[in-house]
Amino acid sequence: MSDAQSRELFEERLREIGAQRYHDKHLFHDMLHGGACTPDQVRAWVINRYYYQSHIPLKDAAFMSRVEDPALRRAWRSRIEDHDGTQENEGGIQRWLRLADAVGLDRDYVASERGVLPATKFAVDAYVRFVRDKSLLEAVAASLTELFAPKIHSERIAGLLRNYDFADDSALSYFRNRLKEAPKDVAFGLDWVLGHADTAEKQDAAAQALIFKTDVLWSQLDALHSAYVSPGRIPPGAWQPGDAGSAASGS
Amino acid sequence: MSDAQSRELFEERLREIGAQRYHDKHLFHDMLHGGACTPDQVRAWVINRYYYQSHIPLKDAAFMSRVEDPALRRAWRSRIEDHDGTQENEGGIQRWLRLADAVGLDRDYVASERGVLPATKFAVDAYVRFVRDKSLLEAVAASLTELFAPKIHSERIAGLLRNYDFADDSALSYFRNRLKEAPKDVAFGLDWVLGHADTAEKQDAAAQALIFKTDVLWSQLDALHSAYVSPGRIPPGAWQPGDAGSAASGS
Repeated sequence: MSDAQSRELFEERLREIGAQRYHDKHLFHDMLHGGACTPDQVRAWVINRYYYQSHIPLKDAAFMSRVEDPALRRAWRSRIEDHDGTQENEGGIQRWLRLADAVGLDRDYVASERGVLPATKFAVDAYVRFVRDKSLLEAVAASLTELFAPKIHSERIAGLLRNYDFADDSALSYFRNRLKEAPKDVAFGLDWVLGHADTAEKQDAAAQALIFKTDVLWSQLDALHSAYVSPGRIPPGAWQPGDAGSAASGS
Repeated sequence: MSDAQSRELFEERLREIGAQRYHDKHLFHDMLHGGACTPDQVRAWVINRYYYQSHIPLKDAAFMSRVEDPALRRAWRSRIEDHDGTQENEGGIQRWLRLADAVGLDRDYVASERGVLPATKFAVDAYVRFVRDKSLLEAVAASLTELFAPKIHSERIAGLLRNYDFADDSALSYFRNRLKEAPKDVAFGLDWVLGHADTAEKQDAAAQALIFKTDVLWSQLDALHSAYVSPGRIPPGAWQPGDAGSAASGS
């Protein structure tokens, strides 16, 4: 049995996973943030990424359903509130639908999740199930991709504002809010993982969980790129540009 | 409530799903069977498709774990035997590893499932879980892609023999055996589905299950094509041509 790494070295190891594998390195994000995506490619991203957004609260509920400690459940609950909303806060899912409006999609179509790529569903569903089935440590560790999110959200806001007419404060409110919300979540999650991964074996499991999550994010962009960029091989049943998903065409 | 379709019409509906969405229509299969795949592209297919093969018995065990009727369990059990083997029959998984040998891969590397594309895992795992979680009718209906398999296996045997030096009886024994095994399975499964889908609602659920399964198969080829064909954007951690997976390089 090897010894556990120090807290500092283990944190460095987790951050290195992000440096190597986080989806800010994916070509599709270069295109999106650099203005190289067509309006239909932006729409495809909005439609598919909605499936991820809309399932995050299910993932968090699956986590809470297995937590015996009321304090941990209470700390975690704000994640569900951030996405599903409260009396005062419309929530991230509604904010994502504002983005859908802004890019000219019918929000009911987007919310119906018809037309989402099967590969998106398989990846996102794998994440929800991972959190349902694996140890609490692995579940929290998987959430730590948020360590790397503030940078991508800042780049995205700047890049979308610079490059796309649809981008304004309302359309981008999802990302601005995540810049406020994510840091508190991830500070809590990181501290929890560093405190609980107290053997080499647990550290390995936590690192693997974070790698798994980077795969979940990366494969969603691979699927988008494969379907809607290169020559654009859209799989049977997925959204076709010009379909009911565009507000102009009705639905 | 609409009425259930007749047995004949419903069977036609299921067959039409295959005609529209089965993965024999996928560009990657055209390349594979037509000899347009490079040796490394064939290897990537062998590595990834192994993950599917190796998980089929888990799927069948998940099904049997929910079946109360001993006769149905008994009928189903031969599927696990066909893949895992018996005293007399090495089984489909071993036969697939013969194919791995033939294309110059290290069979231990293939069996380790390191290097499998994350998208392959997400799709295959989604299938295993579908069978674990959904109704028995949906689980059996999802297996009916085998209705369409004999044609693709015949085309594959002919195409591989014609186009690739590695292809011989030993390498292709997996496919020859499936030509013998699949018809009895699918005759049983089709009869069971036609008999049990006795309302419009159940027929819809069975049709949706078959569509889901076509998505599982199709998205595996999309992922392969995206990673190893076009410009070949291999996601982090997946098999790289020339890696340990080639027998020549040892592992």
